[in-house]
Amino acid sequence: ADIEAGKAKAAVCAACHGANGISIIPDYPNLAGQKVRYLQMSIKAYRDGERKNAIMSPMAAGLTDADVANIAAYFASLPAGG
Amino acid sequence: ADIEAGKAKAAVCAACHGANGISIIPDYPNLAGQKVRYLQMSIKAYRDGERKNAIMSPMAAGLTDADVANIAAYFASLPAGG
Repeated sequence: ADIEAGKAKAAVCAACHGANGISIIPDYPNLAGQKVRYLQMSIKAYRDGERKNAIMSPMAAGLTDADVANIAAYFASLPAGG
Repeated sequence: ADIEAGKAKAAVCAACHGANGISIIPDYPNLAGQKVRYLQMSIKAYRDGERKNAIMSPMAAGLTDADVANIAAYFASLPAGG
């Protein structure tokens, strides 16, 4: 996966999940240092409708598998505690 | 919330999510240092059927709101990154 491409693609995610992957809003999960596969599965769950969320579903819509792999690799690469 | 009670109740969770909240299995999320509210929402989503998973749904079934609050507080209290 391409972490730099993931970082670029994930710019919009920072609004809720934090620029360092530690979310500012308590309802939204921290993503920094999370498991890559779990991140991929979660993003795809929103993209493919297994999980439904007013914010995340549209965010994930249209992402290619490569985008998902890159975004997941990016957040997983961030230090867990921020 | 009662973190000690949560720790006791979460003993079974360690099998997948790790004794320190860092999962051994790449498909399963790290829980250590995660947001308390997000953890509560996720456990309740499995308990109440919003999320369906062969392992997590039965795990969450039967948990009271107090159990959920304690378990969430316990994992959130663990240092992110293990």
